[in-house]
Order: sequence, then structure tokens, then C-alpha cells
Amino acid sequence: MSDAVKIHPAVDSGIAPAQPGFEGGTLSCHCATDRVTVEIGAQVAYNHVCGCTKCWKPDGSLFSQVAVVGRDKVMVTANGEKLKVHLYGRIENDQHAFYGLDFVHTELSPQTGWAPPEFAAFVSSIIESGARPDTMGAVRARLNEIGLPPYDVLSPPLMDAISTHVARQRGVLKD
Amino acid sequence: MSDAVKIHPAVDSGIAPAQPGFEGGTLSCHCATDRVTVEIGAQVAYNHVCGCTKCWKPDGSLFSQVAVVGRDKVMVTANGEKLKVHLYGRIENDQHAFYGLDFVHTELSPQTGWAPPEFAAFVSSIIESGARPDTMGAVRARLNEIGLPPYDVLSPPLMDAISTHVARQRGVLKD
Repeated sequence: MSDAVKIHPAVDSGIAPAQPGFEGGTLSCHCATDRVTVEIGAQVAYNHVCGCTKCWKPDGSLFSQVAVVGRDKVMVTANGEKLKVHLYGRIENDQHAFYGLDFVHTELSPQTGWAPPEFAAFVSSIIESGARPDTMGAVRARLNEIGLPPYDVLSPPLMDAISTHVARQRGVLKD
Repeated sequence: MSDAVKIHPAVDSGIAPAQPGFEGGTLSCHCATDRVTVEIGAQVAYNHVCGCTKCWKPDGSLFSQVAVVGRDKVMVTANGEKLKVHLYGRIENDQHAFYGLDFVHTELSPQTGWAPPEFAAFVSSIIESGARPDTMGAVRARLNEIGLPPYDVLSPPLMDAISTHVARQRGVLKD
């Protein structure tokens, strides 16, 4: 499939499965020396490829790959003074539906066994990064082909979770 | 299917097809007297059911039904001084991707032949209007069953159009 649309290096040549019982690993930045190291003490959840213009993407990739893990499972263990935003993203707003979770890029880990991407989010947004509009049909077809259903926001369960959070905040939903 | 999830009166009992060559009709409000009348001089496009919390919905309906038509095809012909927001919604922001279009509710017309709904937008948002989160699977299944693919934003072609507009505004896309 050398002519196939390229989505992300972690999925273009087949998607590695999660390892049962996997309990985390180490993320490292790409610096030549004094690498920042972050220990993740749990399996990640909701791993996905993301077309938004904000996430860090490997050079030449249309999509990022991003998952979440509880913030209490994320610990910077080396050279944290260099850390900017690449290794994890923390949701600091305690009113956010996903407060308590950190975003992480498992591709920055030498371990295998992380939960693989399950869907593609913010697909239409890749146009804002330079993807040609007339390629979008092929991009969505390729995502479906490799088992990553494409959505132009997050996946339905996550969108439902956000709306449920909003409904509780507004008193529309009482339980 | 009396036990089926109710989506909107215009789709719950089968969806009427568009009439070839249909060229518009009249929308009227629900007032008992001095009804506002709006003439629509063209067939509508992108008709859909919408779960957002902003659109006007019939009493008891989870979704609204809304389509677009060129603003030059919309003319208030009676009692316009009473008009608030129910009969049409105009996009006044000339930087908006859909500037030039008005939103209209074809169910307020006595004519038949309008283009029917094609998809369901902002489905997860119905939770914010009181839909139970645990019913969302049934709602999406019912939407698929009646031929209205469910999305949690707009449909992919419309989302691509919005991103294309943004890409042009930002100079990412040059043509």
C-alpha cells in the first residue's frame, strides 16, 4: 500500500495491539542530550489520531497520536526543567469534562503494549494544516480501512461525556 | 414502530422525498392571527435534523429540522414587524463560512416537495436539552435506521467546507 494516504507512522504499517496487563512505561523527548523523561504508571485510554492544529505531530504527518491517562499516574523523572508541551498536556481547568486527565503521546515511549488508537478525531481540521480539500474522501476511506472511524470532533462516547458534563453543570441532569 | 425513539415529526413516520423542479414556497409562524409570512424562492439545501440547544424545536422533539437557502431567495411578505427568530436565521457575519445563507425550517410551510433531511447534526448535544445519556445508543441507531447518519457536529462535507474557508482566510490554501 505504498500509494496509500499516510495518516501517522504509528498506524500506517499496521496497528500494534495493546498488551494485556500493560501497566505503563516511559516517554522521552527527542533531544540529543539531557532528555526529559516522564513515567506513566498505567495503561492509557482513548488513544486516537487527531487532525486538530494544536497537537504535536511528527514531521510530515497529517495527524497526531494522543491518548489520556490519569494525572496522578504521570511523573516527570528527569530534566523536567526543559519541559514545554510535547511530552504531556495537563487539563488545568477543573470545570473541564476531562479534568483529571493528561494527554500523552505514546509514540515517544520505547515500550510496546500501549493501547492503540481506536478512532480519528477532528479529521476535517487537517485542511487547516494544508491537506487538500479534494483528498478528504481518500483520507476518510483510509481511516475506515485501517479501523479508525473518522469523526470531525471526538468520538461519540467522548462527545456524550462532554454533553453529560455540561448538562450536570447546568442542572439539566440531576444524577 | 410506536416504541421507536422519536426524533422529529417530519421524520418519525417516514421522510417525504423532494419534488423534482420544486422552486420554493411559503413559511408561516404559528400565531393564531396576523401570521408572519416568509416567501422562499428556491429549493433548500443541506436539510438536516439538529440536536443543538439553539435551534427552534417543536414541543417534545429532541431535534430541530433546519435547512439553508440563499439569503436573496428569502423575503418577508406579511407581518414582518412581529418577526423574532423562528422563521429564518440570517448569517450576518461576512467572515462566516456560510455567509450568504439563511437557515429555514421547512416544516413551517404548507407546501410539500422541500428537500428532505439528509443527516443528523450535533447529536450528542441533545443531552444538554435533557435526553438521558443512556439513550444515546438507541437515538443514533434510530437515526441510522431512518437514513439520517448521526454526527456530533455537522456532516463531513460541511465540516470540510468550514475548514477550507478557515484555510483560505489564513492563507494556508491559496486557491
